[in-house]
Formats: sequence, C-alpha cells, structure tokens
Amino acid sequence: MLEQRIRHTDLRARVVTAEEAQEWIHDGMTVAVSGFTKSGDAKAVLQALAKRVRQSGEQLKINLYSGASLGETDAILNAQHVVSCRLPYQSDPLLRKSINQGEVQYMDQHLSQTAEFLRSGYLGDVDLAIIEATAITDDGGIIPTTSVGNSPVFVHQAKRVIVEINLNTPIEFEGLHDIYLPAERPNRMPIPITHVADRIGTTYIPCDPEKIVGIVLSTCSDTPSNIVPADRDTQRMADFILDFFHHEVRYGRLPRNLAPLQSGVGSVSNAVLSGLATSSFGNLEIYTEVMQDAVFELFDSGKVAFASASSFTLSKDMTQHVNSSLSRYRDQLVLRPQEISNHPEVVRRLGVIAMNTALELDIYGNVNSTHVSGTYMMNGIGGSGDFARNAGLTIFVTKSTAKDGRISSVVPFVSHVDHTEHDVDVLVTERGIADLRGLTPRERAKTVIENLAHPSYKDELLSYVKRATSSGGHTPHILDEAFAWHTRFKETGDMREAEPIAKAII
Amino acid sequence: MLEQRIRHTDLRARVVTAEEAQEWIHDGMTVAVSGFTKSGDAKAVLQALAKRVRQSGEQLKINLYSGASLGETDAILNAQHVVSCRLPYQSDPLLRKSINQGEVQYMDQHLSQTAEFLRSGYLGDVDLAIIEATAITDDGGIIPTTSVGNSPVFVHQAKRVIVEINLNTPIEFEGLHDIYLPAERPNRMPIPITHVADRIGTTYIPCDPEKIVGIVLSTCSDTPSNIVPADRDTQRMADFILDFFHHEVRYGRLPRNLAPLQSGVGSVSNAVLSGLATSSFGNLEIYTEVMQDAVFELFDSGKVAFASASSFTLSKDMTQHVNSSLSRYRDQLVLRPQEISNHPEVVRRLGVIAMNTALELDIYGNVNSTHVSGTYMMNGIGGSGDFARNAGLTIFVTKSTAKDGRISSVVPFVSHVDHTEHDVDVLVTERGIADLRGLTPRERAKTVIENLAHPSYKDELLSYVKRATSSGGHTPHILDEAFAWHTRFKETGDMREAEPIAKAII
Repeated sequence: MLEQRIRHTDLRARVVTAEEAQEWIHDGMTVAVSGFTKSGDAKAVLQALAKRVRQSGEQLKINLYSGASLGETDAILNAQHVVSCRLPYQSDPLLRKSINQGEVQYMDQHLSQTAEFLRSGYLGDVDLAIIEATAITDDGGIIPTTSVGNSPVFVHQAKRVIVEINLNTPIEFEGLHDIYLPAERPNRMPIPITHVADRIGTTYIPCDPEKIVGIVLSTCSDTPSNIVPADRDTQRMADFILDFFHHEVRYGRLPRNLAPLQSGVGSVSNAVLSGLATSSFGNLEIYTEVMQDAVFELFDSGKVAFASASSFTLSKDMTQHVNSSLSRYRDQLVLRPQEISNHPEVVRRLGVIAMNTALELDIYGNVNSTHVSGTYMMNGIGGSGDFARNAGLTIFVTKSTAKDGRISSVVPFVSHVDHTEHDVDVLVTERGIADLRGLTPRERAKTVIENLAHPSYKDELLSYVKRATSSGGHTPHILDEAFAWHTRFKETGDMREAEPIAKAII
Repeated sequence: MLEQRIRHTDLRARVVTAEEAQEWIHDGMTVAVSGFTKSGDAKAVLQALAKRVRQSGEQLKINLYSGASLGETDAILNAQHVVSCRLPYQSDPLLRKSINQGEVQYMDQHLSQTAEFLRSGYLGDVDLAIIEATAITDDGGIIPTTSVGNSPVFVHQAKRVIVEINLNTPIEFEGLHDIYLPAERPNRMPIPITHVADRIGTTYIPCDPEKIVGIVLSTCSDTPSNIVPADRDTQRMADFILDFFHHEVRYGRLPRNLAPLQSGVGSVSNAVLSGLATSSFGNLEIYTEVMQDAVFELFDSGKVAFASASSFTLSKDMTQHVNSSLSRYRDQLVLRPQEISNHPEVVRRLGVIAMNTALELDIYGNVNSTHVSGTYMMNGIGGSGDFARNAGLTIFVTKSTAKDGRISSVVPFVSHVDHTEHDVDVLVTERGIADLRGLTPRERAKTVIENLAHPSYKDELLSYVKRATSSGGHTPHILDEAFAWHTRFKETGDMREAEPIAKAII
C-alpha cells in the first residue's frame, strides 16, 4: 500500500503524523496550500494546527494562500484566529465575517493571476507548501487529488513542502492531471493548448524530493458541495440561456456543439448544464474551473466529448459515483492548474462561453460579483474576470430580486464594479434575457430594464433613465440618486419606494 | 511611379478620383476604414463624401468603424452628420459632443476586441473598407502607411475595398509592417510572438484583387499630433515612475532593461519615455499601441533595442525626421494589427509594463478612463483595458486635480469604472506614487490618500474612510456620500467644501 502511495523509497522515512507536521508552522509564516473550491484541499495538518492553537492558547498568525476556497478547514482556522492574510478566494461565512471586520487581511484576486503575483516577488516567499496528494512518484513528483489549483506554483516557490497523502483518493486519480507551469519571463512560450482535450504537461507536480520535509497519511474527505436544486426561477434562467444558444446557432454565430463552456459554481450554472443533457446540442466541450455534479450528468447522457477544469466539486453521492466509475470518465477529462484553466490566453483562443453569477447588475451592463452594498465582501471575484474579459460570449445571471423582493439586483449603478460594461455580453434574470452586444449604453439601459428588472422596480428605473438622459451624456446618470436605492435599503430594509408591508418589518 | 505604387498590373485601371470613389458609399452602409490615433487613416474618400453631403444636402448616414481615432476627418464627417454609428474609439471634441447628445451611436470597445466582434457576426457585414496604403503588391496585397490598426480584419471581412494610395508616404514604409490575423475558431493557434521583435506575418495585408473596386491616389497628410511639452507636474509624475523602476530593479523584481513598455498617448507617457533617454536603463523594448515622438528620441539616444506598435503618431517635425531617416530605424521597429499589439495573450506572456492615463481614480484603486462625471464620454477606453488586465505591471497616472483645483482626480468612488481594483498595481499623481500591490482595500485607501491626493482634499477623504470603516466592511463605503463631491461640483462648480474664493467664481 505505502509502496504504491510513496514510490520514492527514501521518502517513506519521512512519514509523520499531522500533529508532528503542524509543529513546522510558526508565527508569521506564509503557508501555501492545495485546495480549490473545497476540493483537494490540505486538511490534516492545518486542522492539527488549529487544534494546537486552541489547546495552547498561543498567538500564532500565518498568511494562508490557496487555490480557491478550502472546505471546512477555512472555518476551523478562522475560529482560532490563525489567519492573518488570506488569498485569493474564500466562501466561508465566518471567514467572510472576519474579513469584513478587518481582522483577516484578504486579497481578492483573479484566480489565474495569483501564480503571476508569486513569481513577481512582491507577495514574499512561500515558507511552506502543504499539498494533498494521491501519491508521490519515484522521483518525488506529487500526484494531486480532486483539484490542482495553485499547487504547482506553490511547490515550485516553496522552501519546504509537506505532502498529505489522502488514502481515500482512488489511486486511479493518477493520470487525470495535466501539470504545466509557464516559464519565467522573458523565456515564456505560448501555452500550447488549442483544443480543450490537449495535454501539455506531466501527470504529477515535479518536486525536488529534498524539499519534501514530511508526509502525512490522511483519510479526511473533501467537504461535499451542497448544490441547491434548481427552483422555478433558476430553471427559467437556464431555459433563457438554452433558447439563446439555439438562437445563436440559427444565426450562424455558434456551431451546433456551441463553444467550450465555462460555468461558475452555483445552481444556475448547474441547471444550464443539466438542461443541456436533454437538449439537441451534442459533442459539447467544457473548459471551466470547477466540474460540478452536472458535468458528470452530461457525461452520462453522452452529450459531452471532453471536460477540462481545475477541480471536481461534487456532492457526496456524486463523489461516490465518480470515484467508483472513474475508468468510464478518465479519457474524457483533465484537471489543470488554475493558471491554465483560467488563462486569458486560452480562454480567448478557444472562444469560451462564460456563464457566471452576478450579485448585482446595473442598467448599463456593469456587474458586481463580490460586494454587498459596495462594502461587504461575499466570496471574491474568483475566475469570473479571467473568463468574462476574454470569452467569446460572456453571460451573467442573477435573480431579479433578493430578500423577498426587498432588494433589486438590477440597479441604476452597481455599488461595486467587478466587470465593466465592456466585458458583459448577455445578462439573464428569471424575467428574461438581455443581449447587450452591439448596443450603446442608452440602448442597453432600455433592454436591461425591459427584459430583466422586476416589475416592482421597473417604473423607478425608467424614471431614472429618462431624467438622467434629459441632461445628455453617453452613459446618463444622476449621481446624487445613483445609490439612492442602496441608501433606502440601509435605512428602511427595503429598496422599494413606499412599500408599507416591508417597512413594517423594520 | 505608378508601377511602383500599384504593382498589380490590372489594378492600375481601377484608379479613380476621390469624388468618383465616394459615390460608392450609400445611406445605411457600414464603412470600415484604416486609421489609428490620427495616423494612416483613410482621408480623401471620406472627405469627398462629406463635401458631397454638404453640397447636396442629402440625408446620408453610415456606420463608421476604424482602428481608433481618425485625424481631422472625424470632425469633417461629424460636421455633416454623416455618421450614425461609430466604433471603437474617437478623440475629436465635436464628435464627442455629438456622442454625448445621443446623435452618434458610439460603441466604446477594448481595441484588441473589435476584430473578434466583427468575426463573431453581430456587428453585421462590412460593406466597404477604405484603406490608406503605401503601395499595392503584385498580387493585390495592401501595404499600409503609418498605422495598421484594424485594416487586416476590415479587408478580410469587407465585401469591397477602396485603397487610398498616399503618394507622400515614403515607399520605404514597405517592410515595416507585420500582418497576422488569428484564424477563426476553433482552428485558432497560439500567436507565436515570444519576443517584441518577432515577425510572424506578411509585410502586406493579403487581399483578393477582385475585391479592390477602386484606387485613389492621395497626397493628404496625417493630422500631426500635438504633444504638450511636460510641465512641472507631468515631469514629477515621470520622475516618480522612473524612481519606482529603479526601486523594482534594486529589489530584483525587474531586470535592468525593465520589461517591454506600453505607454498610452499623452504627455506623461511621453515624459516617462523621454526620461528614460537620460536614465541608466538601456536595451529597452517597447510593446505598445502608438509610437509617439519620444520613442524616436529614445532610438536616437541608443536606449531602445526594439519597438513594436500599431501606429506612429508623431508631431509634424518628427514625421519629417522619421520619413527622411527611416533606414536608420527600420530594423528596430514593427507595426502590427491592433489585435496583436494589444492582444492579452501577448501582453501577459511578455509581462508588459503598462502606463496609461486616468481621468479619475478612487481610494480603493478603481480607475475611470472615459466618463466625465460618470456620464459624458471623453474618448474611449482604447487599449488601456487590453494592457491593464494582463500586464506584468499596471500603472495609471493623473494630476491630482483638474480645473484649477476645483476637481479632485482622487475621489471616494469613481463615477465610472473602466479598470477595477483587481487590475491596478500602481497609481501616480504629481504628489506621489502609490504601490497598491499586495495591499487590502483598507490599506490601499490609506496609501492612495496619503501619497496621491491634493492637500485641499486629503482631510475630507480621510474623514470619509474613517467614518465608512467604522461600520466595517472589506471595502468600506458610505454610499449616500460616495458621489457627494461630484454632486457638489455639479451644483457649485467646485468639489471643495466651503472654498469661498472658488464659490465666488460661480
């Protein structure tokens, strides 16, 4: 067993417990760990560290860099106030709270760019990398588990590496990964991916065995994803998108197998992919960050030719299904470093169709993906910017209202801009779809309000645009009213004007 | 003479006057023309069209697509109300006025992306392309003049082509250009540029001779650029940037020849490049959109190894100098299509240092490049987004105030976002420089206010941040005050609070 999991003979002597390994983590260190959207994250050592801090009560703070969100480990560390600085993405409610209180220094980054920032030097050194692995090859190469994320660049940059071999990961995961690290500039070459299925690297993360200071054997499971099943609104949004795809095929702007699909994490994206299973589209390709359950449903329906991502983020049932039938899927999928799964170079070349969730959108097509009321961080921009700017077709979805109608997701001016009007092609709510391509701002405002806004907010939006436009301008605004709805919500708990019932709640 | 300029024998019979050629332009047509930042633009036929419309009084409207701004032709057409829709960039004061009045439908696009939008089909057909040329090769290839811009994709997409051979362009321009068009998806390959000097295409724009319906011989000159000489503030900003480069070299984050430089049009960028001429940096490379006068000054100082751009945009004197000594420069420069000069793939691979001008910036590092008071279009985003998102180092510059101090360029919340906090590394005003890399929003606010804001506005900015932060949040804002300065300016003509002298002016 151990021979299969640690093939480098000398390294077998470096097996330690998680409790021993966590002793190597000291106050002030930068620790870079595997993990992307709750998958393949380092768990045992960090959780042992949290336990030590809880028990000892000592003051210990680390900078924690990852691929994207960790599973429950983010919450466990946060509870012990262990994290000083966190990047580039998170999605844990308590960690989010610490970030918004200013206790955790959070750097929200485009997920393809963290590797570049590390190389450029201003994020400092990586003292220690902790990487979850399926196995270690006979020359020290690290075979990842359910995600690749930033692990290759972390291993490359780290002074020392701890490997957490997850004994629950089927050994058949070997061969799923394709590890490629762009060279340092000025010697960088084109990324030679021209088709979704292209393999351009190694099946393991190359690592000098001398760097591996310890190996922990773990049986922790990934925190399962909890995809909410599509409700009526979500299904309507998915249907609008599928209709739109048919429309584009009819006009010759998309081929019958569409273009490589990227879909953000969430129930709408999942519903769109599920909807494709019963559609007339076939031979589909997926070039995305995260494979959710629906991707495997699509495989099972025979609709997908190939899928590329940086992680599996699956429900408990789907994890069991995939792990037990990996041989059926293995020739049709690949897991890549997030720098490659999200690389603008590849996204633009392939002409990806990017589908991501907006928190808020405005009448001119700007999108807020991250900040509630322009102030409070939700999760982070993730890969949405990597894809949106360079995709062949960029779609953002959101329900037209939130909080039982008290918040309109369609506003005069978004309270934070993550995606500018230049980067958004199509917007979708449960009310309809707005194709903004080739429209001027004034035209965009018209179609956004007519097609996307909830009836409770339409008149006020129309009034805003009409009054703003009366003073002219390419993108007419009345700045002293632009955030009036946000202010009203702050004061009354309702963005709607004179809505007696909602006001009564306050 | 004509033999040298029109080498395709049959095409010599297609020489017509500009007056004859303009007859081919009809109401409702989409006309796509050469021209990038006032250089190499189609002039004779469009000006003849304007003359016809002025004389006949007829109602004629066209969609006018270009590389970027045209020279005086944009103003001449606008005076006759000939343009219905204009893209992707402009900089003419009167055209700007028509856009802001809603008379001209303007689409402000990332300059690398117009070619993609044309290919994707939703911008409609190109009825006619008009391309200024140095000469036509013996198989119909079009050799551009002082810019390449979007001409290759226009020629490829157009149903018919008119060539304006500019007899004033030295025939030695042949060989300066490198024409490469990415293939349609899904057959697109990597753009094989790994060094600034790489040549990857042809020296002419391939064109089926049958498409060329007419050739006009012209002697119109490019509208010369009018670079304002660096004033004290501009020079200070340039000095801050040069000091910063030295700092980065000292810390090993930049090599001694820096990285390929992109600089937007304008006096600060020009001053930075001029400053390099007397610096200790050498063997520099330039990978930019536009070569301004300073690039040739750098050549003359022996500091530049190679420069790549999509156009020359030169003063009258420098044009004469360059035209008369082209042989000295020709092995050290190349003019590319704007899709390539600005392509995110190449910008990211090379790790370009991008320097562009901001109209307005906010305490968290968001940048407005386009809209005065969030409403009135200035010029357009140009290539700033192509570069900023993917550059190795992204710098924006602006004076800390405008209108004699009545406008602060550093505001709580920019009134339009073209570049998000995720895409901005370094900000510069005449007051100082703020390195935002690796900082959280709260840290960014501190350094932006301390280093960049004008003293007249510092206290109010500090007060804003302090009060906003008291309610927590990752990016603390008080939305009902966020645009208070813009509103104050609208009402009193001054963003400053209680400034008696300034108020007296109103």
